[in-house]
Amino acid sequence: MKSKKPSDSFATMTELVFPNDTNILGNLMGGKLLHWMDIVSAISASKHCNRVCVTASVDFVDFRSPIRLAEVVYLEAFVTRSFNTSMEVRIDVWAENMQQVDGKRFCNSAYYTFVAVDQSGRPIPVIEVEPVTELEKKYYDGAMRRRELRLVSAGRMRPDEAMNLRDFFSPE
Amino acid sequence: MKSKKPSDSFATMTELVFPNDTNILGNLMGGKLLHWMDIVSAISASKHCNRVCVTASVDFVDFRSPIRLAEVVYLEAFVTRSFNTSMEVRIDVWAENMQQVDGKRFCNSAYYTFVAVDQSGRPIPVIEVEPVTELEKKYYDGAMRRRELRLVSAGRMRPDEAMNLRDFFSPE
Amino acid sequence: MKSKKPSDSFATMTELVFPNDTNILGNLMGGKLLHWMDIVSAISASKHCNRVCVTASVDFVDFRSPIRLAEVVYLEAFVTRSFNTSMEVRIDVWAENMQQVDGKRFCNSAYYTFVAVDQSGRPIPVIEVEPVTELEKKYYDGAMRRRELRLVSAGRMRPDEAMNLRDFFSPE
Amino acid sequence: MKSKKPSDSFATMTELVFPNDTNILGNLMGGKLLHWMDIVSAISASKHCNRVCVTASVDFVDFRSPIRLAEVVYLEAFVTRSFNTSMEVRIDVWAENMQQVDGKRFCNSAYYTFVAVDQSGRPIPVIEVEPVTELEKKYYDGAMRRRELRLVSAGRMRPDEAMNLRDFFSPE
Amino acid sequence: MKSKKPSDSFATMTELVFPNDTNILGNLMGGKLLHWMDIVSAISASKHCNRVCVTASVDFVDFRSPIRLAEVVYLEAFVTRSFNTSMEVRIDVWAENMQQVDGKRFCNSAYYTFVAVDQSGRPIPVIEVEPVTELEKKYYDGAMRRRELRLVSAGRMRPDEAMNLRDFFSPE
Amino acid sequence: MKSKKPSDSFATMTELVFPNDTNILGNLMGGKLLHWMDIVSAISASKHCNRVCVTASVDFVDFRSPIRLAEVVYLEAFVTRSFNTSMEVRIDVWAENMQQVDGKRFCNSAYYTFVAVDQSGRPIPVIEVEPVTELEKKYYDGAMRRRELRLVSAGRMRPDEAMNLRDFFSPE
Repeated sequence: MKSKKPSDSFATMTELVFPNDTNILGNLMGGKLLHWMDIVSAISASKHCNRVCVTASVDFVDFRSPIRLAEVVYLEAFVTRSFNTSMEVRIDVWAENMQQVDGKRFCNSAYYTFVAVDQSGRPIPVIEVEPVTELEKKYYDGAMRRRELRLVSAGRMRPDEAMNLRDFFSPE
Repeated sequence: MKSKKPSDSFATMTELVFPNDTNILGNLMGGKLLHWMDIVSAISASKHCNRVCVTASVDFVDFRSPIRLAEVVYLEAFVTRSFNTSMEVRIDVWAENMQQVDGKRFCNSAYYTFVAVDQSGRPIPVIEVEPVTELEKKYYDGAMRRRELRLVSAGRMRPDEAMNLRDFFSPE
Repeated sequence: MKSKKPSDSFATMTELVFPNDTNILGNLMGGKLLHWMDIVSAISASKHCNRVCVTASVDFVDFRSPIRLAEVVYLEAFVTRSFNTSMEVRIDVWAENMQQVDGKRFCNSAYYTFVAVDQSGRPIPVIEVEPVTELEKKYYDGAMRRRELRLVSAGRMRPDEAMNLRDFFSPE
Repeated sequence: MKSKKPSDSFATMTELVFPNDTNILGNLMGGKLLHWMDIVSAISASKHCNRVCVTASVDFVDFRSPIRLAEVVYLEAFVTRSFNTSMEVRIDVWAENMQQVDGKRFCNSAYYTFVAVDQSGRPIPVIEVEPVTELEKKYYDGAMRRRELRLVSAGRMRPDEAMNLRDFFSPE
Repeated sequence: MKSKKPSDSFATMTELVFPNDTNILGNLMGGKLLHWMDIVSAISASKHCNRVCVTASVDFVDFRSPIRLAEVVYLEAFVTRSFNTSMEVRIDVWAENMQQVDGKRFCNSAYYTFVAVDQSGRPIPVIEVEPVTELEKKYYDGAMRRRELRLVSAGRMRPDEAMNLRDFFSPE
Repeated sequence: MKSKKPSDSFATMTELVFPNDTNILGNLMGGKLLHWMDIVSAISASKHCNRVCVTASVDFVDFRSPIRLAEVVYLEAFVTRSFNTSMEVRIDVWAENMQQVDGKRFCNSAYYTFVAVDQSGRPIPVIEVEPVTELEKKYYDGAMRRRELRLVSAGRMRPDEAMNLRDFFSPE
């Protein structure tokens, strides 16, 4: 097998918000959600490469809407693109008050990157991602720009070398 | 009081890595560390404004070096700058194998932003940060560029409006 | 709305098996799985009736195959039939070793029953279930026999009054 | 030693209901109680055979009365009968509001079955149970009928082969 | 009711040692045992006075023998004596390796003191303890000397005022 | 290296009080605080000797002021003196309501003793403590009297042999 589709690494997770997950106002703590996002995206990355996967980085995460005690949180994840030994995973999060009929509301999305490792913890190459739908292709293409931003943020690339980002911020 | 210094909001946290915090290789899971970073930075933000603080966003986090089972994790946080109702908090993370004498090793740093809220969860203005040391001033100045990156990432600012970022990526 | 389909109450949950979930041999403890089955089926029941749902009973659960540390557990649940204020939920459980390519293996299935309650904890009627597929109809029909078994088991019906069960055990 | 009495495997457990054990109404979640019942009955089974014991199945469990936050839960378990490599354990559950003087109230009882395994996880024979009191003898005798119900429920026995059950449901 | 016997407040607790309760050598952490001792003695104190009880102090605790992962820990507690609004509770701890036939081994004992409080958290008088057995009378009598040691340790009594202690350390 | 200063083993810990840490009145349970004190003092002892350290005993702990849900708890620990294979650690505890400006309030202090062990769990000698400040010297000197009290409490020394304690209780 040379590649897998994003749907092959699709993973979901559902969590009920318990008292210990909340702050004094009864809202889910951001750190707890980051923890759940890490688990579901680690599962997704493992589905793609059938290896132990360790978190390499987390991109910007924006907490748009508060999630309340006893609400249900839905997380969905899939691998958007791989880069040699690493994979970018996109996670989307929804919340739902089960006592209301208006259904799930979108909360936020994020990108985590993982590295596949062998039993000694050494990085090991992973197969490629083959996007199928228009949306998957969009995520696949955007992955290159997000990767540059990561390299610049981590101090591994000079800002002026980030060609995609330069164009992004100075479009003319 | 019109402002506080970064040292006024300085908060530390120390965690021992327990079995349930680790993956199958015995390394601390990234999501658990993100959770701890959220708690120490929430404490720091509360120290600055004496209000309940809720996580608004997390900037890029890079996991450089694996942290092992039974190691001790040290987290330090302080508010670098405030923006009306929000505060940027910088967190630095170290780890230490207590059975070795070579001391703490630096793991990573990150920026979380928090919003101060009243008892109904409504945003409420916070006092300003007054940097004192050279390093604090550097973090204070950089906060403006990181803020632009957050606004662009969250889709609340167009890339070409992000003046600081444009200069950053196209320096000539 | 007079009824909902089983697909309307479909709920999934994914759990990673952590050290504290296992016994000394590194296998998931049965009680932990029962706990997860309770949560996913409570979410499913709430989806059906948009009420707080409390566990009324658990039918026979058979643990066929051991689940190992670091494996991923998938749970799926949906309401098969409702009886005035109570609902029967079917849960199916799979496990997967992410480092192997042979995919998910079926572990077990079970039936939990829930009662919908108002804010004071008093039972409250729920809408009916309208099965659509052949399988859903089979589960819907079987629910009557399982209900009789529950009533006999709980001492609320005499064995010789359980018409469906009598036929089941003495078919000639 | 050829056999042990039920009193030799008697095990008790006491739990305080903490916030994270409860649902939004402040009642103990059924799944948490199932988890505790699994632990106390595993301890009881281990007392009988001095082996690691893994949960094989859980019979019907009926949740009669809600248990509240901060109440104390008492669990008692003992092995009623053994079948080659497996043991049936009966668990009785009581709850108590410590701020009231009217003492413990009975909540429910259940039967869990366990299999004794060696260090490789392979089933291993266990000694017999020798009931002493009238009640122990009643549980010992009933174990045969409950076993038939388990085999039928697990699809390992045809309903019309379950002699004890057939008589139970068609007494004439 | 003017008094209760120690047997009226007798409480037991049984805990299985899970991975997260242990240090890197696989031994139960002392702090976890202190936590369990606090819960069982709080239950015992509540049994005596039917009030919410808060921990007032812990006497010297000696950890004689290490307790291992997967062992079972038994705790027993009862109120030895009451002093107006406070109660002294004695806790005894045993451990057992279920895979061995040599039974429980004694680990340690300790005294915790509790204060009975009303719903506002204010101390409230409790009934007396009436010791019955010789051992209970010995614990009842010794409670006075332990109380003096507590008062001296807490800086609420001058050492030379502790009559029982003075005699204890200078017997001639 | 023949000795270390108390400042070399200085360790801090910060904890946020979550719902599951509290009793029905919303106050931090004493046992949870004892657990945290054990972890921070184990870290401090490990800093002194670079070995795995196991809890040997806990001296009298007095819980002066209740700590509330959502408050922040600060713990500080350092080794006061070593005795061959054991170390005495002093822990000081403060609490703070972040929504008030009056800062941290002192809660209590305690002494835990630890034994350094090798990988087989056998005690191993540790280096000495060299107190520097007046306060550190006071703690260093007092350690001898506290050690006698421990030996008497553990039944390893006869009360009339405890020279320092005899003088303490009968000063004339």
